[in-house]
Amino acid sequence: MKRRNFIKGAAIGAGVAAASVAAPAIAQRKITWRMVTTWPRNFPGLGTGAQRLADRITNMSDGRLTVQVFSAGELVPALGTFDAVIEGSAEMSHGAAYYWQNKSRATSFFTGVPYGMTSRELAAWMRYMGGQEIYDEVYDQFGVKAFLSGDTGTQAGGWFRKELTGLSDIQGLRFRTPGIGGQVWQKLGATVVNMAGGEIYAALQSGALDAAEFVGPYNDLALGFHQICKDYYFPSFIEPGLATELVVNKDKFSALPKDLQAIVESACQAEYDQVASEFYANDPIALKTLVEQHGVRVHQFPDEILQAGAVAAKEILTELRESGDALTKKTAESYISSLNILRTRTETVDQAFLAARAKYFDLK
Amino acid sequence: MKRRNFIKGAAIGAGVAAASVAAPAIAQRKITWRMVTTWPRNFPGLGTGAQRLADRITNMSDGRLTVQVFSAGELVPALGTFDAVIEGSAEMSHGAAYYWQNKSRATSFFTGVPYGMTSRELAAWMRYMGGQEIYDEVYDQFGVKAFLSGDTGTQAGGWFRKELTGLSDIQGLRFRTPGIGGQVWQKLGATVVNMAGGEIYAALQSGALDAAEFVGPYNDLALGFHQICKDYYFPSFIEPGLATELVVNKDKFSALPKDLQAIVESACQAEYDQVASEFYANDPIALKTLVEQHGVRVHQFPDEILQAGAVAAKEILTELRESGDALTKKTAESYISSLNILRTRTETVDQAFLAARAKYFDLK
Repeated sequence: MKRRNFIKGAAIGAGVAAASVAAPAIAQRKITWRMVTTWPRNFPGLGTGAQRLADRITNMSDGRLTVQVFSAGELVPALGTFDAVIEGSAEMSHGAAYYWQNKSRATSFFTGVPYGMTSRELAAWMRYMGGQEIYDEVYDQFGVKAFLSGDTGTQAGGWFRKELTGLSDIQGLRFRTPGIGGQVWQKLGATVVNMAGGEIYAALQSGALDAAEFVGPYNDLALGFHQICKDYYFPSFIEPGLATELVVNKDKFSALPKDLQAIVESACQAEYDQVASEFYANDPIALKTLVEQHGVRVHQFPDEILQAGAVAAKEILTELRESGDALTKKTAESYISSLNILRTRTETVDQAFLAARAKYFDLK
Repeated sequence: MKRRNFIKGAAIGAGVAAASVAAPAIAQRKITWRMVTTWPRNFPGLGTGAQRLADRITNMSDGRLTVQVFSAGELVPALGTFDAVIEGSAEMSHGAAYYWQNKSRATSFFTGVPYGMTSRELAAWMRYMGGQEIYDEVYDQFGVKAFLSGDTGTQAGGWFRKELTGLSDIQGLRFRTPGIGGQVWQKLGATVVNMAGGEIYAALQSGALDAAEFVGPYNDLALGFHQICKDYYFPSFIEPGLATELVVNKDKFSALPKDLQAIVESACQAEYDQVASEFYANDPIALKTLVEQHGVRVHQFPDEILQAGAVAAKEILTELRESGDALTKKTAESYISSLNILRTRTETVDQAFLAARAKYFDLK
């Protein structure tokens, strides 16, 4: 059915192109592209972001580039989306770069790393400090091109069955937390378990998991973790930001007329702002519900854990910087040196303002 | 010359429209719009942002909506740009909403207010908590529509001739700082002076000014204030963010085909991210130059000043919330209640992460 629609759309497009005299044929032809995603349909902030991005491209191009969204598993499995774009069974995928660590360990840096960049710092690196150029180089190996298309902002640290007093409470804890963030928790003594978001609730309920981290209040509320765990810890020092990406088949992107290329690129950048806005607006509302209606207790991680997490993060990032893979090494070097420049502003200005506002400004 | 180009462009456009058969005439016609700005040409982050925004619209529309940028004074004076759009002598203006406080005191909230929202919080309010709808209501009175088009992030606090120990050093200080931020400093005891950015250097040199704040390192370095003042204070608690805006004549915007409307809107949102990235990347590099090459000393404001600033900000915002102008009152109420929700996330998550990173994570 969908394939038929696609062919029908293309045929109508060809008719329009034939009738048009003034502009080059390709500028007038209507094409439909498939965007396969790693998210459930309308998954808060992430699935909604993929759908909005598709709609932006379709609307800005007046349908000349119509984008159809397929949720995880609909056309290909969530973790098959990158390969689908490489192989050409879809033109675009929407997900997060660190899902493709098995292809290149450099990918983590384009999503978020422990004790790394916030969403603003990541955008500054990508757009002004060589990040996008390195991203292009990493993805060139696979014949694709990508743009950041959203960011969750700093995430929540996780759901625990009881209050944490220090590192001793982490030892042997069966904790669901994926990726290199999971490696940090492993170094801290946790028994790290990985599983899809949809499986966490049942695993907490059965006792297979002692603790779990997913995204933040906006997503977590929907998944019901608060029905089992009441102690909710902040901040996620392993995910100070999590960027999503739009991956496009490079040959197909290059063949687009320049105006459609510009539309895809600006649509992604607009969504980078929109997704962050969605999380910043909805997280605190969801957190209020969790606390006031479900008796959730909000905590900051004990200093001992924050400090040990920083040591572990440093070891992991140092290892990536010393990687035998030249591109991973190059990515890590650029990221770390840029972070060291960017954080001087964040700490002298942003953090200082937030601290002063928290301390002195209160207007009910 | 420019007018001739404009007429020529329009004429070519009409020819294209006549030749096209398939699409509605208006979708094919090439039009040129004038964007008048409040900035000098290529002024870092602000003038460059206006030019990039114009280029994005032109490129995404393949020239069907070509935007020509006029710097401050070129077509109309900086502070005449809003009226130019109302009267129709330009189709668009690029500036900051708080320049139009004489038209509505509500406008400050769409730019930035003392101890108010950061750039991320402002975007969340605008896009998810009713901010844009109120912005539309305020600007409807003037027959225009606006979109946020950039943000400087939290600014620098200002340049001083000597170190500040507390409030006593502020008394009678002739300080250049405009808008309602200036009212805060006035309450703290400063003699507030307003003047255009380009006049500050000479006034500092002649002794007419004791101190000045402008934007932040990226802009300030270019203006040379460090040649006179060596003590540079952070953060600007009066400008936790400063958003720029694109104002469009509402009738003309409504007459655009939907795809061009969508292009204008997404281009502004992409620039909201791009301008912030430009400041976040360039501010710390400029600050390094100021410190290492020009002997500038970086300080945090003394607590006594931060605290008194918060009291003054509270008085001013309370006064705006109690305004006799219904729309100013409505804007202030929505802004303050949204800030109180948003700050719970910023303080629990973002600020906590930044503090932990500053304290525990160091990777050279």
